[in-house]
Amino acid sequence: MITVGIVGGTGYTGVELLRLLLRHPSVQVNVLTSRTEKGRRVDDMFPSLRGHTDLEYSDLNIDELKKCDVVFFATPHGVAMKHAAELVAANTKVIDLAADFRLQDLEQFEKWYGLEHACPDILKDSVYGLSELNREKIKQANVIGNPGCYPTTVQLGLAPLFKQAEALVKPESIIIDAKSGVSGAGRKASLGMIYSENADNFKAYGVAGHRHHPEIVEALENISGQKGVFDHILFVPHLVPMIRGMLSTIYIDLTDAGDAADLQTLYEQFYANEQFVDVMPANSSPETRSVRGANQLRIALYKPQPKRLVVLSVQDNLVKGAAGQAVQNMNLMFGFAENAGLAGIGLLP
Amino acid sequence: MITVGIVGGTGYTGVELLRLLLRHPSVQVNVLTSRTEKGRRVDDMFPSLRGHTDLEYSDLNIDELKKCDVVFFATPHGVAMKHAAELVAANTKVIDLAADFRLQDLEQFEKWYGLEHACPDILKDSVYGLSELNREKIKQANVIGNPGCYPTTVQLGLAPLFKQAEALVKPESIIIDAKSGVSGAGRKASLGMIYSENADNFKAYGVAGHRHHPEIVEALENISGQKGVFDHILFVPHLVPMIRGMLSTIYIDLTDAGDAADLQTLYEQFYANEQFVDVMPANSSPETRSVRGANQLRIALYKPQPKRLVVLSVQDNLVKGAAGQAVQNMNLMFGFAENAGLAGIGLLP
Amino acid sequence: MITVGIVGGTGYTGVELLRLLLRHPSVQVNVLTSRTEKGRRVDDMFPSLRGHTDLEYSDLNIDELKKCDVVFFATPHGVAMKHAAELVAANTKVIDLAADFRLQDLEQFEKWYGLEHACPDILKDSVYGLSELNREKIKQANVIGNPGCYPTTVQLGLAPLFKQAEALVKPESIIIDAKSGVSGAGRKASLGMIYSENADNFKAYGVAGHRHHPEIVEALENISGQKGVFDHILFVPHLVPMIRGMLSTIYIDLTDAGDAADLQTLYEQFYANEQFVDVMPANSSPETRSVRGANQLRIALYKPQPKRLVVLSVQDNLVKGAAGQAVQNMNLMFGFAENAGLAGIGLLP
Amino acid sequence: MITVGIVGGTGYTGVELLRLLLRHPSVQVNVLTSRTEKGRRVDDMFPSLRGHTDLEYSDLNIDELKKCDVVFFATPHGVAMKHAAELVAANTKVIDLAADFRLQDLEQFEKWYGLEHACPDILKDSVYGLSELNREKIKQANVIGNPGCYPTTVQLGLAPLFKQAEALVKPESIIIDAKSGVSGAGRKASLGMIYSENADNFKAYGVAGHRHHPEIVEALENISGQKGVFDHILFVPHLVPMIRGMLSTIYIDLTDAGDAADLQTLYEQFYANEQFVDVMPANSSPETRSVRGANQLRIALYKPQPKRLVVLSVQDNLVKGAAGQAVQNMNLMFGFAENAGLAGIGLLP
Repeated sequence: MITVGIVGGTGYTGVELLRLLLRHPSVQVNVLTSRTEKGRRVDDMFPSLRGHTDLEYSDLNIDELKKCDVVFFATPHGVAMKHAAELVAANTKVIDLAADFRLQDLEQFEKWYGLEHACPDILKDSVYGLSELNREKIKQANVIGNPGCYPTTVQLGLAPLFKQAEALVKPESIIIDAKSGVSGAGRKASLGMIYSENADNFKAYGVAGHRHHPEIVEALENISGQKGVFDHILFVPHLVPMIRGMLSTIYIDLTDAGDAADLQTLYEQFYANEQFVDVMPANSSPETRSVRGANQLRIALYKPQPKRLVVLSVQDNLVKGAAGQAVQNMNLMFGFAENAGLAGIGLLP
Repeated sequence: MITVGIVGGTGYTGVELLRLLLRHPSVQVNVLTSRTEKGRRVDDMFPSLRGHTDLEYSDLNIDELKKCDVVFFATPHGVAMKHAAELVAANTKVIDLAADFRLQDLEQFEKWYGLEHACPDILKDSVYGLSELNREKIKQANVIGNPGCYPTTVQLGLAPLFKQAEALVKPESIIIDAKSGVSGAGRKASLGMIYSENADNFKAYGVAGHRHHPEIVEALENISGQKGVFDHILFVPHLVPMIRGMLSTIYIDLTDAGDAADLQTLYEQFYANEQFVDVMPANSSPETRSVRGANQLRIALYKPQPKRLVVLSVQDNLVKGAAGQAVQNMNLMFGFAENAGLAGIGLLP
Repeated sequence: MITVGIVGGTGYTGVELLRLLLRHPSVQVNVLTSRTEKGRRVDDMFPSLRGHTDLEYSDLNIDELKKCDVVFFATPHGVAMKHAAELVAANTKVIDLAADFRLQDLEQFEKWYGLEHACPDILKDSVYGLSELNREKIKQANVIGNPGCYPTTVQLGLAPLFKQAEALVKPESIIIDAKSGVSGAGRKASLGMIYSENADNFKAYGVAGHRHHPEIVEALENISGQKGVFDHILFVPHLVPMIRGMLSTIYIDLTDAGDAADLQTLYEQFYANEQFVDVMPANSSPETRSVRGANQLRIALYKPQPKRLVVLSVQDNLVKGAAGQAVQNMNLMFGFAENAGLAGIGLLP
Repeated sequence: MITVGIVGGTGYTGVELLRLLLRHPSVQVNVLTSRTEKGRRVDDMFPSLRGHTDLEYSDLNIDELKKCDVVFFATPHGVAMKHAAELVAANTKVIDLAADFRLQDLEQFEKWYGLEHACPDILKDSVYGLSELNREKIKQANVIGNPGCYPTTVQLGLAPLFKQAEALVKPESIIIDAKSGVSGAGRKASLGMIYSENADNFKAYGVAGHRHHPEIVEALENISGQKGVFDHILFVPHLVPMIRGMLSTIYIDLTDAGDAADLQTLYEQFYANEQFVDVMPANSSPETRSVRGANQLRIALYKPQPKRLVVLSVQDNLVKGAAGQAVQNMNLMFGFAENAGLAGIGLLP
């Protein structure tokens, strides 16, 4: 049994962490902080938790956090990096669900997040927590940068193509047309987020540039070992009138070798031992509801035209795209079964 | 470990049973039938189950069902009663999620369901499966009539008032203004059910009469021991543009004794030991999403005017209102922990 | 052609007024104010208006407003009453869509809105703008208090019963179980309003007390000429995950006379000449989408039990429940055809 | 005043035609047919029309249709082509909202619709009804093939690029990632269409091939005068949990000339005189709700990377994508103002 702290427990990733961790067989959540709700019971704010916990919000007290085996930061960008050094020094592991430990490129970090990084040394030693791709490093890590939701769909959707020795695809051709449910924008009192502005509506956003673009570029470079070829890929996110769920439609031009290859089999073999990545049969249509509430990503492949591959990649943005993957990483770090606390089946309908 | 059969596995209560039973620690689902989908894998129809089962649909074969310890009928009305006798004779327990074993009054059954009852004797010995109210009988039962979704909210919402010795309320005054998500109507190719007819829309239905009215009347008579006083209560259901969730707003006139009583405490004490019924603090507003996917019913009480009580009662219609309560009943029948397989926390947001 | 000013053009009633007035054959909108958006084009904020207007927001300038023939206040409560006297003195008519001129009872106004009334004299001369019930007074009015959305459904849903000489109903028995789309709460950056808190969810709110309760009581007193009998009626609003639409389910106990009466015919005759109130045939189920975007209220009657009447009353909360009725009142005040600018058909689906 | 017939008045394009035509100043709808609803009042099926018409459904009677000046076919594919010859012979104009007169290539028609064409000669003389691009021909036409919804967004989204003398784009690079509300699938009792299968969900469909692909290819060939270069463009449609609305995100590689060109100005000038096509300012995010119920298409352009253009194109699939454009075509054919009956402002929120 390990002890856990959660910093920032009033957002959607915070309550999702609680949903998973309160049912985890080897975890006890001891600390839950909030800048604004100190003293309030968490199940008063989130009645879904009534009967499952007596936790109250507390102020962020670093000494209390140091007593935990691991601390999750479900905070805005820039919080985790302020406390990571002290926690690591106290042998407390850190899993940040914000962006502080996602980008190794400090210039990109400062450009997109407007923050100077507070602990570049810790960052260098931190591990990017895409569980399936960095499993061994994660097991040894003290600090995890939990991936962004969109980048998770893209990396798992493309990894089999870039982990191959031969060149199957033209990397510079990649277009990612991504769609997310509204919970991806967090729990904020913002006019753009209100019901009547989003229901029965659809739009693109961030077309001119989005923070997940540099994260995708850096991640694909790491996966493929190729630098520079991904700089000009396109990433266009859209907002779907649904609460949870994310689908990325990824377009890639194939080389002659890629056109000739059996990509379906390639993908199936690549993920054969992965319980949280599901390569669906040819001609499947992965729906976001098939992963609602589940730590699961599903992929389908199409070749509707010669030398053109379409990859469909779906997940629940709050689970495999955030809190679920964070728990998966915790499981790896502490030697638990990788699916401990994560075996729930998606809610359909 | 017991073996389970599910008859009718292509509807929403069927897939919800699977979601719960495939994670139940003491259950193995051996048989899953469908009239139309024989030979098809269930996870082909419901991809949320991919990775969790290899089950295929089969034809209804009574000999296969007899080998099970318990058979759930997630079928249209009139199916379970055809097979119950044979199963009971084979020591297989039966839990019917349709209406065949809900009403003891055969006239009412035939009036509202247009069916002559096939096994009145079995019906007489069957138990109405409102778990909290009939727990001891359920433990001994061979055949369970699992309650309707609306009647569950009403019975649990009113039971504390009618289990009291003194007369707190005027039973003939009851008005139930109930609201349900669309999944309550099942998984049917019907014009009235399609997305564009239901989204961004709200309406009442069945105002002139609804099948759950006689069930509510009979149940309240059994709870209170009073006959005749509930015949003219009002029950008006409405359709909410959401998938899951049900809220009943129940209006009751109080007697002088009821007006003077501490009803909040009465309710809290009545349900003090019930993990699946949550009496919320005064002035709470129970939301359907607080029980999404959870086997949980939440209640709040208001007295906005003198001698007038308003009871708010919410549940997930597919869980505590159907499949979850069915599993709860199974747990009681087989001596499992009552929350085995039912401890999941609701999905919020 | 009259000239129009709109104070408070950034909320949903403001943009709905523009949608209607920009197509009105006898109106020119000259002034549109906003505290926060001065200088911004309105079609930049609401792109649905692109191509229909060049209006820009301006600061509230009373001299500019005085040049208008009529000024609509689509503002928070308490704004119109500050400016009404000056506008009236300048022969500019005032239509307030907030609550400043709804309640004649100043104590109730101060209790529920927390404001001392700024112009009790103007209030006394103002007219409550329920168009169908107060048509002749509205024609002569200088200041209109446009009714609340819920009260509109209740008054039009009950008026035929209380305008009768004989006593058909027991007024103290009235229960109003009302349901509204989320736009009724306005366009505000509030956590409770955001998409992920409201979608796929249903709840009651304001059960302990709601500002529309005293307005309903006062209005029913005026319609019926009876004082005191409505004080303890119940009004319980609920929030529906849809943008627009409102349905009130109204329960009333009938007297013997009411039970014997042909209420369907009574209603049909009462509204025979009203184009914006539709008494549907017996056993109809009025849906909110049948009035989406239309200045229309539809009513259906049921007697599911002896001596118990159920009235279903639906409207679009932003049209007949707000901006549409305001335009209807303007049409009456200026002698235009009552349906000028209001003849649009509801958007279904 | 012209007389109009509508064949197939029970689907969504049928009721949308009625919504528009019943308010059209120069039109009288005399005939409305349905195979299944003969004798039923249309406002019984669609209560939004109550108060606006007394029309009843009749059987399809060709002699009655011949008396009309124009007949709209809001039917399944294959109906209009059976009757077009006879109607044309009687000087009755035909506007088909299905696919019978969209594709000049008979092989493609038979391949994608499984039908042999019944009147190739009429087809040859028919005009493809993309109003803005074929205006002069439409004015002279007897038979109009009203465009598919997706192809309308694509053609208007790309026309300025291909009507240019110089080569701005690489036509073979086009990828259309399109998203539609559920009403695009029509009003059919199909399991895949029901609320609980579509709400809070997102998916791609028809990835391997969709009927609108050959229509897009043929249309782009006609616009550009280039054959063969569009055969392998990608078109991937997705289903959005909303009723109405369609957004196409179109990706195109630019040539050096295209990269250097001022495409924003090019588009603005191209559509400068078009009231139903709105080129939004740079960096705009067109939302589907900005055109809800309006005969309007809005476009925004982005160049997020060098030599890569992203075009966003939104419309209401039932209006500019179907019934509205059909009325626009009728207006052109009969010399009415092009916006007669089409001046309504979109419903936002």
